[in-house]
Amino acid sequence: MATQLSSKEDYESLLDKYDTWMFDCDGVLWRGDSPIDGAVEVLDILRKRGKLNQYPRKRLLFVTNNATKSRKNYKGKFDKIGAQVTVDEIYGSAYAAAVYISSVMKLPKDKKVYVIGMSGLEEELREEGISFIGGTDSADNTLETFTLANFTLDPDVAAVLCGLDTRINYTKLSKAFQYLTRNPGCHFLVTNEDSTYPTADGLLPGAGSISAPLRFALGEDPISIGKPAKTMLDCIQAKVNFDPARTIIVGDRLNTDILFGQAGGLATLLVLTGITSTKDITGPHASSIVPKYVTDSIGDLRALRSG
Amino acid sequence: MATQLSSKEDYESLLDKYDTWMFDCDGVLWRGDSPIDGAVEVLDILRKRGKLNQYPRKRLLFVTNNATKSRKNYKGKFDKIGAQVTVDEIYGSAYAAAVYISSVMKLPKDKKVYVIGMSGLEEELREEGISFIGGTDSADNTLETFTLANFTLDPDVAAVLCGLDTRINYTKLSKAFQYLTRNPGCHFLVTNEDSTYPTADGLLPGAGSISAPLRFALGEDPISIGKPAKTMLDCIQAKVNFDPARTIIVGDRLNTDILFGQAGGLATLLVLTGITSTKDITGPHASSIVPKYVTDSIGDLRALRSG
Repeated sequence: MATQLSSKEDYESLLDKYDTWMFDCDGVLWRGDSPIDGAVEVLDILRKRGKLNQYPRKRLLFVTNNATKSRKNYKGKFDKIGAQVTVDEIYGSAYAAAVYISSVMKLPKDKKVYVIGMSGLEEELREEGISFIGGTDSADNTLETFTLANFTLDPDVAAVLCGLDTRINYTKLSKAFQYLTRNPGCHFLVTNEDSTYPTADGLLPGAGSISAPLRFALGEDPISIGKPAKTMLDCIQAKVNFDPARTIIVGDRLNTDILFGQAGGLATLLVLTGITSTKDITGPHASSIVPKYVTDSIGDLRALRSG
Repeated sequence: MATQLSSKEDYESLLDKYDTWMFDCDGVLWRGDSPIDGAVEVLDILRKRGKLNQYPRKRLLFVTNNATKSRKNYKGKFDKIGAQVTVDEIYGSAYAAAVYISSVMKLPKDKKVYVIGMSGLEEELREEGISFIGGTDSADNTLETFTLANFTLDPDVAAVLCGLDTRINYTKLSKAFQYLTRNPGCHFLVTNEDSTYPTADGLLPGAGSISAPLRFALGEDPISIGKPAKTMLDCIQAKVNFDPARTIIVGDRLNTDILFGQAGGLATLLVLTGITSTKDITGPHASSIVPKYVTDSIGDLRALRSG
């Protein structure tokens, strides 16, 4: 059973145990465009704590599955709510997907990716020097009838990458399906598999729902980059030196954030400001995924205020 | 193992055994707009055979999962290829879905259906007197951003019905998701679950792929109307008196047509002019779904020509 935290001593003990703090963003630090009460102050408190001779005293990392935004877009979002965060503290599944394609898959320079996704995903691919088609291209953002006879298969497409795309349509799905079935060895990648996407006003279908048609049509599971997949942790570990035993991830979702932490040997802190509610973790229908700690909101850590 | 048919005697024996002949359409009688060679002649031969004192001598029924067309649309398609078929010989999943909603679900008259689908599906709902929203409504056929705050939930929507919709988009998926999660007891129905859709130029994502995002976001399977579901057979049995032991279904798809026949106690004849190829039914990777008979094409039955 998860340990419920509530007192200043509870949070102080957490600070003693963990130096690297990973945060999910949607549902933890904000919901849509509304910051969670106290989130900015808590990030500020954490930055000021820790051993004086250690730099950074506490390392903060922001690990998000939302692939509609690039790290730079995210930096802008942090700026807007008044949180001091640098681009290299941000790990998004769009960035991790681009790193995976260039460094793990080692996509040859003359090959390209067919993208179902938005400008943030394209920006990360561009920064990694990956050629792509599809995405925000107006030719693919249409509700006009898709006619297979008029479609020319690009033989250089060696991967389909699918993230949350709120302009999803039959042309994009059909083109992706052609590449995956007709270009031999074409890889099927998804940024993440979140079934839903939390907005300030409620839930909408998530990235996993956008790739679900391809998964269903192919009868095949994609390679997933974001939490809970280890690919995301590999991407962070390639850039940051941290001790998993002294690392904690704060998240709102059991089957992404908490599972990700557990698979990577990190401690896990569930907050109840996003997807998961008390009934999901207690009682007869509780999930089999049990976080190490629970607190109502990241704002609870304001108890750590000095004095 | 399936019995391979090839001689005139093979087909004559089939005619002796079966009075009611059910035909799948896409991949059996035509591919896209191209009729399968000999299909029209074979339908004609079958109509002329059988016991003289029996009417109809041979009963022909056309059982299709394609819900983009109404029975009237289908009649037009038969007319175009020169086949004499009446509307009441045609059973489409759009029609069966409408019958299911009015006769089995017994949707109250003040309730309505949210539709993801095309005009043929709407036509069948209208003919059964079922109120609906969504579908071809221009407000829902858009790639504009869907904003939950601007959406008003219609409390009278008691079911979401999803079929193949080549104008699928995030607004439709988001609205359907709201009804299914926020209107208590809202039913989740799909016309059929074909993963792919055969066109003259190749495969495209099918109706099952269109509903896959909702299934994934909800973590819940829908009620499926079309083959192989028994709902389709129930719909036919409510209108037509036939003896399953003297009925055969001719189809191109193992997991819809052949499974449907087997579940209903019908004989099954697989043709290889659509989705299924020889390698799917023979050798080490053969499907576990085994048809009773196989012939290359419906056109093979031209061997029955008199003389």
